[in-house]
Amino acid sequence: MKIALAQINTKVGDLENNTKKIIDNINKAKNSGVDLVIFPELSITGYPPRDLLDFHAFIEDNSYCLEKIKEAAEGIAVVCGYIDINKKGYGKKYFNSAVFIENKEVISTHNKCLLPFYDVFDETRYFEPGKEVNIIDFLSKKIAITICEDIWNDKGYWERPLYKFNPVEEIEKNNDVDLIINLSASPFWLNKPQDRINILKAISKKQKTHLFYVNQVGGNDDLIFDGSSLVIDPDGNTAAQANDFEEDLLIYDLNKKQGKIAQVSTSEEESILKALNLGLKDYCKKSGFKKVIIGLSGGIDSALTAAIAAQALGSDNVLGITMPGMYSSTGSVDDSIELAKNLGIKCLTVPITNMFNSFIENVEKDQGLQMNLAEENLQARIRGNILMMYSNNYGYLLVSTGNKSELSVGYCTLYGDMAGGLALLSDVPKTMVYKVSKFINKDKEIIPNEIITKAPSAELRPDQKDQDSLPPYEVLDDILKDYVEEYKTFEVISQKYDAELVKSIIKKINLNEYKRRQSSLGLKVTTKAFGHGRRFPIVQGYNFRIPQ
Amino acid sequence: MKIALAQINTKVGDLENNTKKIIDNINKAKNSGVDLVIFPELSITGYPPRDLLDFHAFIEDNSYCLEKIKEAAEGIAVVCGYIDINKKGYGKKYFNSAVFIENKEVISTHNKCLLPFYDVFDETRYFEPGKEVNIIDFLSKKIAITICEDIWNDKGYWERPLYKFNPVEEIEKNNDVDLIINLSASPFWLNKPQDRINILKAISKKQKTHLFYVNQVGGNDDLIFDGSSLVIDPDGNTAAQANDFEEDLLIYDLNKKQGKIAQVSTSEEESILKALNLGLKDYCKKSGFKKVIIGLSGGIDSALTAAIAAQALGSDNVLGITMPGMYSSTGSVDDSIELAKNLGIKCLTVPITNMFNSFIENVEKDQGLQMNLAEENLQARIRGNILMMYSNNYGYLLVSTGNKSELSVGYCTLYGDMAGGLALLSDVPKTMVYKVSKFINKDKEIIPNEIITKAPSAELRPDQKDQDSLPPYEVLDDILKDYVEEYKTFEVISQKYDAELVKSIIKKINLNEYKRRQSSLGLKVTTKAFGHGRRFPIVQGYNFRIPQ
Repeated sequence: MKIALAQINTKVGDLENNTKKIIDNINKAKNSGVDLVIFPELSITGYPPRDLLDFHAFIEDNSYCLEKIKEAAEGIAVVCGYIDINKKGYGKKYFNSAVFIENKEVISTHNKCLLPFYDVFDETRYFEPGKEVNIIDFLSKKIAITICEDIWNDKGYWERPLYKFNPVEEIEKNNDVDLIINLSASPFWLNKPQDRINILKAISKKQKTHLFYVNQVGGNDDLIFDGSSLVIDPDGNTAAQANDFEEDLLIYDLNKKQGKIAQVSTSEEESILKALNLGLKDYCKKSGFKKVIIGLSGGIDSALTAAIAAQALGSDNVLGITMPGMYSSTGSVDDSIELAKNLGIKCLTVPITNMFNSFIENVEKDQGLQMNLAEENLQARIRGNILMMYSNNYGYLLVSTGNKSELSVGYCTLYGDMAGGLALLSDVPKTMVYKVSKFINKDKEIIPNEIITKAPSAELRPDQKDQDSLPPYEVLDDILKDYVEEYKTFEVISQKYDAELVKSIIKKINLNEYKRRQSSLGLKVTTKAFGHGRRFPIVQGYNFRIPQ
Repeated sequence: MKIALAQINTKVGDLENNTKKIIDNINKAKNSGVDLVIFPELSITGYPPRDLLDFHAFIEDNSYCLEKIKEAAEGIAVVCGYIDINKKGYGKKYFNSAVFIENKEVISTHNKCLLPFYDVFDETRYFEPGKEVNIIDFLSKKIAITICEDIWNDKGYWERPLYKFNPVEEIEKNNDVDLIINLSASPFWLNKPQDRINILKAISKKQKTHLFYVNQVGGNDDLIFDGSSLVIDPDGNTAAQANDFEEDLLIYDLNKKQGKIAQVSTSEEESILKALNLGLKDYCKKSGFKKVIIGLSGGIDSALTAAIAAQALGSDNVLGITMPGMYSSTGSVDDSIELAKNLGIKCLTVPITNMFNSFIENVEKDQGLQMNLAEENLQARIRGNILMMYSNNYGYLLVSTGNKSELSVGYCTLYGDMAGGLALLSDVPKTMVYKVSKFINKDKEIIPNEIITKAPSAELRPDQKDQDSLPPYEVLDDILKDYVEEYKTFEVISQKYDAELVKSIIKKINLNEYKRRQSSLGLKVTTKAFGHGRRFPIVQGYNFRIPQ
C-alpha cells in the first residue's frame, strides 16, 4: 500500500482554490500509484477559519466542495478535513471533521474529540467535540483516524492533561490497529517541531503502529504552519519526513518501507528565519501585495526585516526608505545604504527635519505647547506618515520592524514606528534578532557588520542608547520570557534579578497593553506572542505581588 | 428575611479594592438589618479577568481575599463570586464559583455549569464547567444558587439551546425551592436589559419562586455592565429593581414584599447614552486619566463625543482641538467653537495647512511622489499627530470619534482620525449617532442644530460629502446590521438593496479588517461590536456568494 501525505498551503476561506488544490494533489498522487492520500485538518476551509464559521452559507459551501472532491476520488482513497453539521438539537452547530472517501463515497466521518481552547486556539467557540474514535478497514488494514489535538493528551507527557478523554487510549483498546492517521493544522513556534516528533514517536512505539501525520503548511494571518509532515514506524523511528515550511507530497510505500526523509531546519535561527520568510511571503501573496516598503533606521531590526523581505519577495519588490532626523548619526544613513546595496533593493532618503520644524513652529511656538518626550514621538510619527504616504500611493505593504522586546516594554511609538500592515519581528526577542542576523551572514556579509555591532539606539535624542533606560537585552529578554511566556510573578523573577528592575519591567509591560492592542498583525514564533493568543485586559489592577 | 443585592462596580484584577468594596457593602447591608447579601459573578476578581487567570498567584490571592470576606461576614450571610481550584487531575484548572458564607464559614460552593464561549466570552478558555446545582437551606428557605449563563439555556426561549444540561430544569426537579439566586456579570448591549427581564420572569413564573438577580455594574475595557439588578416574584412580576448604570444596594424584604423599583432607561437612545457615559468615565477612572482631548471637526461624531465626555467627566476635564485644513468649511471651526461654548469646554484651534505644505514640499516635490488619495490620509494623520502631541504632553487621554458605520467600510484613516486610546462611538452606527444627539438636545440645544442638520463630510477634498461615495446612512446601517450582526450573505441582502451596492459594501467591510485590527479599544453597545467579539481573519478568500 502506498500512502501520500499532501502537505498543502491553503488560504483561509478560499474554498474554491483550496478544493482545486486538493483535487490537483489527488490526481498527482493517483499518477504516482498512491492508494490513499491524506490532507490536513480543515483542508477545505483552511485553518483557522475563525468567525467565517458564523456564516452558515460558508458551511454549506464547504459541503458542496466535499462533493467535488468525492467526484475526483476515482481509483484512490482520500482522507480530507472539512466541517460537518451537528444534527443534535443542542450544542455547537458544527464538528471539526475528517472524511474517509473510497470509491467516490464517504465511507466514514471522524469528529475531532479534543478541541483546543487556549493561546491562539478557540475551537470550543465553534465546534462540538466528537465522542469516539472510529476505526475503519482499508486494504486489509485497520486504520484509526484522529485530528490534531486528539493525540496530544498523553497522561505521561503532561503534568496535568487538559482533557478527561484520551482518544489514543481508545485506539489502544483496539489492539489490532495497524495505522494511526492524524490530520493537523499545527502552527509553528520555537521548538514545536521537535516536541511534535517526540509525542508522535512515543505514541507509535506504545501503540506499535505506523503513524501518518500530515500538517498544513503556510502563513494565515499571524500563524505560520511549518508542515514537517511525518511517517513514524512502529519502533518509533522516522520512516519519512516532508519538507518544512513549503508544500510537499510525501509518499510512503508501506510494503517496501520506503519514503523520502527531507532535510529540515536544524537550528532555532534557521527555523525562525524560514518561518518569518514564509509568513511574510504568504501574507503578501494571499492579500494581493506584490511589493513592500520598509523604513530603514540603520539599526538591526530594520536591517533584518529588509533582509528577510528581500529573500521572501525578491529584491525588486522591496523599497527601503531612510529618514534621517536631527539626532540621526551619519552611520544611520550610510549603513542603510550599504545594506540596500548588499540586498540589491532600492533605497530612498527623505529627511524629516523640515517637517519636524514645521510642527514645532506651528504647534509649539504658536500654541505655547512645551514638548519633551512628545518630541521623540513626533519624529517617529512623521516617519510613520512618510512611510504611509508611499504605501498609500504605491500600493505597497508597509512592513514594520519593531521587535518583541521593544513591544513588551513600550519602546515604540504608536502611529510612528508601529505603523504598518504586518509586524515581521513583533514576536522575535532582540537577542534572537541578533542570532538570526548572524545566521543570515554566516556565509557572506549581507547585513553590514557595523549594523550588528553598534549599540542599539532609537536616535530620537542626542547620544541616546537603548541601554540608557533598559537593562542589557539578555536580561530583559529573560525577564520577558519568565513573565510573558511562563507567567512567573515578581516574587519569583526578583530572585534572579534586581527587584527594582523587575518591578519596572513588569509595570512597563502591563502599562503598554494599550499600545500593543493597536499594533498591526505580527507573526507568532514563540509559545506566547502578543496578539489574540494573549488576552490581557488593558485596564486592570492586579499588583503581581509587587510590594508597594 | 431581608435580602440585599449588592450591585457593585469592580475593577478587573484589583483584588484588594474589590474586596474592600465587598466588605463595605456587607457592613452597609448589616446596618440595614439584612440577613443575606448577594454579590455579582466573580466579584472578587472583577469580570472579565481574562488572561490574568493564567497567573496562578492571582488565583491564590483571590482565595486569600475570600478569607478576609469570611471574617467580615459576622451576623450576616453572604453570597459572593470567586475563582475556585479544580482539584481533579485533568481539565481546566479553575471553576467560576460562588460561595455561600454563613457564620463566617463557607457552607457551600457552587460552580458555574454553563460557560459561554461566543462573541466576547471566552470562559471555556479558563474554566471547567460545574456538573450540578447545589441547593442550600437558609432561614427555613430552600435556595438554589446559579451563575449568569446557568439560567440562559431555556429550551422554550432558544431555537437551539447551546448546552445539553439545563440547571433550571435541575432546580425544577427539586420542587420545593423557594428562591433562585443568580450572580451575573452580564454586559450591556442594545435591548439586552429587556431580554433579560423576559427570561427572568419566565423562569420565576414557571418555577413559582422568587428570583434574585444581581448584576455587576461599570465599565471594564470594552464591556459596559449595566447593573439593573432585579427581584422577580413567583407570579413573574418585578418586585424590586436596582438603578441602571450605577452602583446600588437593593434591599428586598421577603416577608413584607417590599423593595425599591428604580426608574431605568426607557429608550434606546437613553440607554446607549448612559452606557457610553459610564464606559468612558470608568475607562478614565480605572486607568488613571482625569482629562481627555477630542479633535473637533465640526461634524456630529466629534460633537456627540465631546458632549458625552463633558457629561461623564465634567466640562473642565475636556479639551477640544479644532484643526482646520485647506478644505475645511468656515462652519467646521465656528460650529465647533459654538459647541465648546455650549458644553463649557476649552477649545484650541491649530490649523494644519503649514504642516501639510511642509510634507508636500519635502516629500512630493522633492522626491517626485505623486499624491492623490494619500493627500486625504495625510491631512487626517497630521491631525492625529497634533492630537497625540497634546495627549503626550499633557497626559490627557485622546478619545477618538469615529462611528461604527465608518469603521465598517473603512471611511477612516489609520493613525489619523483613528488615533486615540478609546473609541467612544466605534460601536454606534451613524443613524444612532443622530438619535442620541437629538436625545441630548431634547430639552435644550447643546449640540448646535447646524451640526445635526448639515450633510456629513470628511472635508478632505473640496466639496466632499459622505454620500458622494456611500449610500444614505439608513441604507448603509441596515446592510451593516444584516451582514455584521446577523451574518446574512450577499444573496439575502441583495433581495432588499441593489446588488452592486451590497457587493461593494460587503467587500469594503472585509477589506478593512486590517484597519479595525489596529483600532483602539471601543465600547460595545450592540450585539456584535468589532473587537475581540468578532474574530475575523484579515486575509481570507471566502466569496460570500457574491457573483464574480
